[in-house]
Amino acid sequence: MKSLRDFKTVKDRRDYIEKLTNVHLKNIGSFTLDEKMASSKNCENMIGIAQVPMGIAGPLRVKRRASSVKEYYIPLATTEGALVASVNRGCKAISEVNTYAYRVGTTRGPVFYVGTLDNQKKLYDWIKNNQSVIKKAAESTSQHIKYKKSEVTGTASYVFIRFYFDTQDAMGMNMVTIATQNIVSVIEEETGFKCLSVAGNFDIDKKPAWLNMIAKRGIKAWAEAAVDKNTVKAVLKTTSDDIYKVWLGKCMIGSALAGSMGFNAHFANVVAGIFAATGQDIAHVVEGSMGITTTEVTKEGDLYISVYLPDLMLGTVGGGTALGTQKEALELLGVYGGNDGNNAMKFAEIVAGSVLAGELSLLASFSQGSLAAAHRKLGRGEKI
Amino acid sequence: MKSLRDFKTVKDRRDYIEKLTNVHLKNIGSFTLDEKMASSKNCENMIGIAQVPMGIAGPLRVKRRASSVKEYYIPLATTEGALVASVNRGCKAISEVNTYAYRVGTTRGPVFYVGTLDNQKKLYDWIKNNQSVIKKAAESTSQHIKYKKSEVTGTASYVFIRFYFDTQDAMGMNMVTIATQNIVSVIEEETGFKCLSVAGNFDIDKKPAWLNMIAKRGIKAWAEAAVDKNTVKAVLKTTSDDIYKVWLGKCMIGSALAGSMGFNAHFANVVAGIFAATGQDIAHVVEGSMGITTTEVTKEGDLYISVYLPDLMLGTVGGGTALGTQKEALELLGVYGGNDGNNAMKFAEIVAGSVLAGELSLLASFSQGSLAAAHRKLGRGEKI
Amino acid sequence: MKSLRDFKTVKDRRDYIEKLTNVHLKNIGSFTLDEKMASSKNCENMIGIAQVPMGIAGPLRVKRRASSVKEYYIPLATTEGALVASVNRGCKAISEVNTYAYRVGTTRGPVFYVGTLDNQKKLYDWIKNNQSVIKKAAESTSQHIKYKKSEVTGTASYVFIRFYFDTQDAMGMNMVTIATQNIVSVIEEETGFKCLSVAGNFDIDKKPAWLNMIAKRGIKAWAEAAVDKNTVKAVLKTTSDDIYKVWLGKCMIGSALAGSMGFNAHFANVVAGIFAATGQDIAHVVEGSMGITTTEVTKEGDLYISVYLPDLMLGTVGGGTALGTQKEALELLGVYGGNDGNNAMKFAEIVAGSVLAGELSLLASFSQGSLAAAHRKLGRGEKI
Amino acid sequence: MKSLRDFKTVKDRRDYIEKLTNVHLKNIGSFTLDEKMASSKNCENMIGIAQVPMGIAGPLRVKRRASSVKEYYIPLATTEGALVASVNRGCKAISEVNTYAYRVGTTRGPVFYVGTLDNQKKLYDWIKNNQSVIKKAAESTSQHIKYKKSEVTGTASYVFIRFYFDTQDAMGMNMVTIATQNIVSVIEEETGFKCLSVAGNFDIDKKPAWLNMIAKRGIKAWAEAAVDKNTVKAVLKTTSDDIYKVWLGKCMIGSALAGSMGFNAHFANVVAGIFAATGQDIAHVVEGSMGITTTEVTKEGDLYISVYLPDLMLGTVGGGTALGTQKEALELLGVYGGNDGNNAMKFAEIVAGSVLAGELSLLASFSQGSLAAAHRKLGRGEKI
Repeated sequence: MKSLRDFKTVKDRRDYIEKLTNVHLKNIGSFTLDEKMASSKNCENMIGIAQVPMGIAGPLRVKRRASSVKEYYIPLATTEGALVASVNRGCKAISEVNTYAYRVGTTRGPVFYVGTLDNQKKLYDWIKNNQSVIKKAAESTSQHIKYKKSEVTGTASYVFIRFYFDTQDAMGMNMVTIATQNIVSVIEEETGFKCLSVAGNFDIDKKPAWLNMIAKRGIKAWAEAAVDKNTVKAVLKTTSDDIYKVWLGKCMIGSALAGSMGFNAHFANVVAGIFAATGQDIAHVVEGSMGITTTEVTKEGDLYISVYLPDLMLGTVGGGTALGTQKEALELLGVYGGNDGNNAMKFAEIVAGSVLAGELSLLASFSQGSLAAAHRKLGRGEKI
Repeated sequence: MKSLRDFKTVKDRRDYIEKLTNVHLKNIGSFTLDEKMASSKNCENMIGIAQVPMGIAGPLRVKRRASSVKEYYIPLATTEGALVASVNRGCKAISEVNTYAYRVGTTRGPVFYVGTLDNQKKLYDWIKNNQSVIKKAAESTSQHIKYKKSEVTGTASYVFIRFYFDTQDAMGMNMVTIATQNIVSVIEEETGFKCLSVAGNFDIDKKPAWLNMIAKRGIKAWAEAAVDKNTVKAVLKTTSDDIYKVWLGKCMIGSALAGSMGFNAHFANVVAGIFAATGQDIAHVVEGSMGITTTEVTKEGDLYISVYLPDLMLGTVGGGTALGTQKEALELLGVYGGNDGNNAMKFAEIVAGSVLAGELSLLASFSQGSLAAAHRKLGRGEKI
Repeated sequence: MKSLRDFKTVKDRRDYIEKLTNVHLKNIGSFTLDEKMASSKNCENMIGIAQVPMGIAGPLRVKRRASSVKEYYIPLATTEGALVASVNRGCKAISEVNTYAYRVGTTRGPVFYVGTLDNQKKLYDWIKNNQSVIKKAAESTSQHIKYKKSEVTGTASYVFIRFYFDTQDAMGMNMVTIATQNIVSVIEEETGFKCLSVAGNFDIDKKPAWLNMIAKRGIKAWAEAAVDKNTVKAVLKTTSDDIYKVWLGKCMIGSALAGSMGFNAHFANVVAGIFAATGQDIAHVVEGSMGITTTEVTKEGDLYISVYLPDLMLGTVGGGTALGTQKEALELLGVYGGNDGNNAMKFAEIVAGSVLAGELSLLASFSQGSLAAAHRKLGRGEKI
Repeated sequence: MKSLRDFKTVKDRRDYIEKLTNVHLKNIGSFTLDEKMASSKNCENMIGIAQVPMGIAGPLRVKRRASSVKEYYIPLATTEGALVASVNRGCKAISEVNTYAYRVGTTRGPVFYVGTLDNQKKLYDWIKNNQSVIKKAAESTSQHIKYKKSEVTGTASYVFIRFYFDTQDAMGMNMVTIATQNIVSVIEEETGFKCLSVAGNFDIDKKPAWLNMIAKRGIKAWAEAAVDKNTVKAVLKTTSDDIYKVWLGKCMIGSALAGSMGFNAHFANVVAGIFAATGQDIAHVVEGSMGITTTEVTKEGDLYISVYLPDLMLGTVGGGTALGTQKEALELLGVYGGNDGNNAMKFAEIVAGSVLAGELSLLASFSQGSLAAAHRKLGRGEKI
C-alpha cells in the first residue's frame, strides 16, 4: 500500500485521496499560494488548502504608547457570521485606542529526572551559576535569538527549567526548541544529568495554564479606550452603566464562578480571526484567550474600557507568515517581515486594540439584549 | 468617508482596501468558495479568503465503540511544519484506536441580577419547578434543538444558569443563543427578574475554565490504543518505558506545576488542524485543548495510551461546514451534514483518535530527543 | 526502645517525652477535658492539649432565611491579634444579616482502575443502573447517613466516582468513608472491577480544588447585609464607595490575577477561628477559604455586601464537638448536638454571617488605610 | 448595653457571656497560659481557651540537607482520631527523611488604581528604578525585616505589586504589612498615585491561589525518603507497587480531574496538626495544603517517596509561639525563638518531613483498603 509521503506533488496526492475516498476535492485543490514553499515548510502530505473567508474591520485608530494616531484595517479569517461585524462596530465607536506591549519572551522548558533532592539542588545551582554558558549555547544556534533568563522549579526528583528567549519578529517556537536542545546537550555533558524531555510542560505551550497567566509568555499587551456617552448611545445603542453591569456580572463574577482564566467576553474570537488571517499558529489561540477586560464609568457617564492580554504568541516572519494570503494580510497592517522585533510588537498592539474593539461591541450587545437578534441575522456564535 | 459595509461585492471592497493600503491582495482575492454564501452567512465585510495549507494524515484505523475497524484520512489545515507528519506517524504506529463519545450538550448561560438572597432563592425555585416551561420555550425556536437540563449557581444577588441543549449535528452556539433568549424572555415575564446578559460566562464559551473540564461541554470523547513493543521500536524509534517516563514527567508533574487544564502533550495542535480544515469555529480550540493523556506499560512491554477530551465543540452542519473546502474535508471523513446527531458524534470520535495519534507521536519524539532535529527539517512547533 | 503507643496514660507518655527532650510540658499537661474520650476518640499518643485563646465577637444579629432576628455571640479560637476585634466591629456595623444554607452533602470518591474504555463504560453503566443497590449498601452502615447521588468521571482506564451523602448534623467524613467502603465492596463483587483507593481525590477532601467550588461540598451558604451610609461612616470610618473600590480591585481583579479560588478578603481567618473553637476538623479550613464576596453601593449611598461559601465542611456532633471547651463553644451558639441536620445548617448560616462581618470590617480597614495601624496596636495578620 | 470590649478581665467577660447565654463555660475558663499576654497580643474579647488534644508522633529521623540524622517527636494538635497514629506509623517506616528548605519570603502586595495605561507604565518604572528607596522604607520599620524583591503586574488601570521580605524566624505578616504601609506612603508621596489597598490579593494571603504555587511564598520545602520493600511489607502491610498505583490514580489523575492545587493525599491534615500545636496562624493551612507528592518503585522493589510544599507560612517567634503550650511544643522540636531565621528553616524542614510521613502512611492505607477499618476503630477523617 502506498504511503502518503511518497507522492511528489500535491495534485498526485490529492488524486490518490480522491480515488480512495470518492470525494471530489475541487475547492481544496484550487489555490494560488506557493505550493513548493507550503508543502516543504508548512504542511506535510499536502493535498491543497482550506479557504477561510477573510473580512475586514476598521479603521481601528491606534495610538501606540501615547504617540500619534494611525488607522488600521484589521483582517479576520473566520467562518462565523457576526464576528467581523462586531469588531467593526467596536472600531466605529472608538475614537482612539491607546496600546502598549512588552516582550516577555518565547519559552521552552525541559524536564530533567535527577532522582534525588541533592541532585535537584546541584542542577539548580548549576543553572544559576552558568547563565553565560547557557546564553552562549542558546545564541550559537541562531543569530535571531537572544537568551533572556531562566526559571527553575521542581519536585525532589524532577527539575523543570523555563528558558525565556527574545526571538525578534518571529513567534519562535522552532528556534527556541533548537536552542533549548543545544542548552540541554551542554547541561547533560557538564552535569551528567539526563534530560527526560526538551519540553516538560513548564514552558507551557498551547495549553491553558496559570503559569502563562502569571509569569506571562510571548508578548504581553494592553489596550485602553475612552468612549463618550453619546457615542455609546449612538453607535452601541446602550449606556455606559449597562455595559459596566454586564461586565461585572459576566466577566468578573461569572468567570470567577466558572474557574476561568479568561475574565473577558470573547478574546478568543478576535485572536482566532487575526491569527488565522495572518499565518500564526492557530493552536496559540489557546494562550491568547486568557486575560482580563475592565470597564469603568466616569463621573460624566462616559465609558473607559481596557484589555490585558498576558500571553500573545505571534510573529511577522517565519511560520505561515510568508504564504501568499497570510503575507498580504500582514502587509495590510504594515507589519510583514522585520528583523528587529518592532513589527511583532506593533502587531501585538494592533491585536490588543482589535480585541478591545471586540469586547466593547459584544458587551454592548449583551447589555441591550441584541445578541440573539444579531445571530438570527448574521450567523452564529458569541459575537456582534 | 465610505463604510466597509457599503460595498456590494467582495471585489469592490477588496479594491477599496487595496487602494487605501497600497497592498495588492492577489492571493486573498483568489478563491472558489461560494461568495454569496460566505459573505452573507460566514463573514461580513469579506474581501476574499485566507488560504491555509491542508495536509492528510492516515489512514487512521478507528474501531468505534468496539465495533469493526474503519480507515480514515484525516485532513489538517495548518501552516506549522511537522504537525501533519507527526499525526501521520502516530497513525502508522496504531493498528486500531478504540473510541467513545458522549453528548454533553451545547451550553448557554444567562446571568440575572436579582438583588437579594430571597430573590435568588425564588428564581432558583422557579427554574427548578418550571423545567417543562423552559423546555417548551427552548424547543419552540428550532426543530433541531432539544433541551437537556439546567444548572444554577450564584452569589446572593446574582443568579447564573447553565442550560444544556442537544443540537444534533450542529455545534449549535447560534441555535442555543436564540433558544436561551427565548427562555430568558419567558423567565423575565413570569418572574419579573431582569436578565443582565444572555451569556454570563457560566456557559462558558471559548475561555479556558475548570467548569468545562469538570461539568464537560459539547461532546466529550475518549480514545485508546495498544501499541506492541516492536512497533514502538520500529515506527517510533523508542521504547514503551521511555514514552511512559516522558508522559509522567511532562503531562502529569509538569502540567501540575504549571497550573494547567491540559495534562497532555499537544491536543491543541491536532484539534486546531482539524477544526480549521472542516469549518469549525477555531476559537473553540481553546476548549479542545483541555484534557488528559494517560500511558501505561504492560507486563509484556507494550504500550497502552489513551486520551480524554471533555469538551469538543464541533459540528457537521451549520457554521463553516457548508463552504467548499470545508465541506470536502468533512466528506473525506464521511461525516458531512446529518440531522440526527450521529455524524457529529462520529466526527468527535475521529478527532479523539487523531489527537491520540498526535500524542503518541510527540511523546515518542520527546522520549528519543528527536524533536529539535525534526524541527530543523520540517518547520517549527511542538510536533512530530 | 519504647513505643509511644505503649503508654497507658497521657501523663506517663508526657513524662517520657519530657525526659527524652528535656522540655517541661507544664501547660500542655494542664487540662480539664475528658482525657479518656480525647485519647481514645480524638487523638492517639496524647500528651496533653494545646491551649488556644478564645475570644467572642458579637452580638451578630442573624435573620435566618428572612425569619426573625436572633443574636449570637461568636466564639473564635485564635492566636492572631486583631481577628476577634475585626469580626466584632463587623457585627457592630450590621443591623441584621440574612442567611441561607443548602446541604450539598459530604462526599467520598473512590477510584477504580478498569484498564479499558469498554470496561469504563461498563462500570459507568453499572453505577447508573444500580442506584438503589448503592443506596442500600451505604445506608446499611449507619442510621445517620442518607445516600444522595453520585457523579462519575474518568479517563479511558480509570473511573472516578463521587458519592454525596446527607450525614445530618455530623461533618461525616468518617461515616461516608465507611459507607463508601461498603459500596465499593458491593461494586467489586458485582462487577469484578477492583477499587484502587476508596478516596481518589475526586471527593476531594482538604485540598483546594475547582471541583468543590463548582460542584460544591458539605453545606453551601450565603449571607447578605445592608449597611446604611451613616453606619459605614460612624462605625467603619469610611464610605460605601471606598469599600466598593477596594472590593473590586482586591477581591475581583486581584484574585483574578492571582489565579485564586478565593474572591474574598479573608474568609479563612474567620472560618479558622470558629472551626478551632468548636471542634471542627481544622484542615477543612482549606475548603472554607474558597468563595466570593460581593459589594454594591445603592443609589442612596448605602452598602450592600454578601458572601457565598460553596464548601463548608462542619458538624455539631461527632469529631471534636463533644470535647469540653468545644462543646461549650457550640452551646454558646445553641447548636450543640442534634440528629436531624438542623443544627448543622443553622451553624453553617452563623458561620456565613460571621464571615460576612469579617469581610465588611477588613474591607473597611483597607479602604481607609488603617490596617497597618491596627496591627501595630493589636498584633498581626490580615484583620481588623 | 455593654460592649464586650469594656471588660477588664477574661473572667468578667466570661461571666457576662455565661449569663447572657446560660451556658456554663467551665472548661473554656480553665487555663494556664499567660492571660495578660494572650488577651493583649493574641486575642481580643478573650473569654478563655479552646483545649485541643495534643498527640505526639515519632521519632521522625530527619537528615537535614544530607547532614547527620537527628530524631524529632512531632506534636500534633487535633480532634480527629487516626491522624496522629497515621503520622506515627509513617515515622516508623522511615529510616531517614532527607529535607531541604528555601526561604522565598513573606509577601504583601498593595494595589494602586492609576486610571490609565500611561500611569501604569510610570508606576511600573518607578518601582523598577527605586528599589533602594523601597528597601530603605521597608527596613526602617523593623530591624528584623529585609526587603528581597518585588514583582509588578496589572491591568491598564490597576497596578499590583508583590513585595517579598525576609522576616527571619517570624512568619511576619504583621511586620510586612507595616513595612508595606511605609513603602506605600513613600510611593504615594513620590509618585502621587493613590494606593487602593495595602493588600490587593496579589500577595496572596490565606486563599488557595496558583500564584503562590507558581511563585511560591514563605518557605518552600522538600522531603524525600527511601523505604525498602521489607519495611513496606512489615510496617505498612502493602507493597511499593500498590502504593505507586494509588499515588498515580489518586494524587495525579484524580487531582487533575478535580482541578486541584493539591496533588497529594492529605498535606492539610499534618500541616493543620502541627500549626495548631505550635501557635501558627491556622488560616495558613490553606497555603500549606498545596503541593505535590511523588512516588517511584526502584528496580529492587523499594519505594521512593517525596513531597514538595511550595508555600509554608510559619514562624518560631511572634504570633502565638510564645504562649504556654505552643512554646512547649516548639521546644519539643528544639526550634523555639531565634533571630537569624535558622529555626524557622529547620521547623519548615521538620514539617515537610512530617508531611511525608503522613503521605506514606495514608497512601499505604488506601493501597491495602484499610482506611475504613481504621476509622471504625480510631475516629474519622482521611488518615491512618
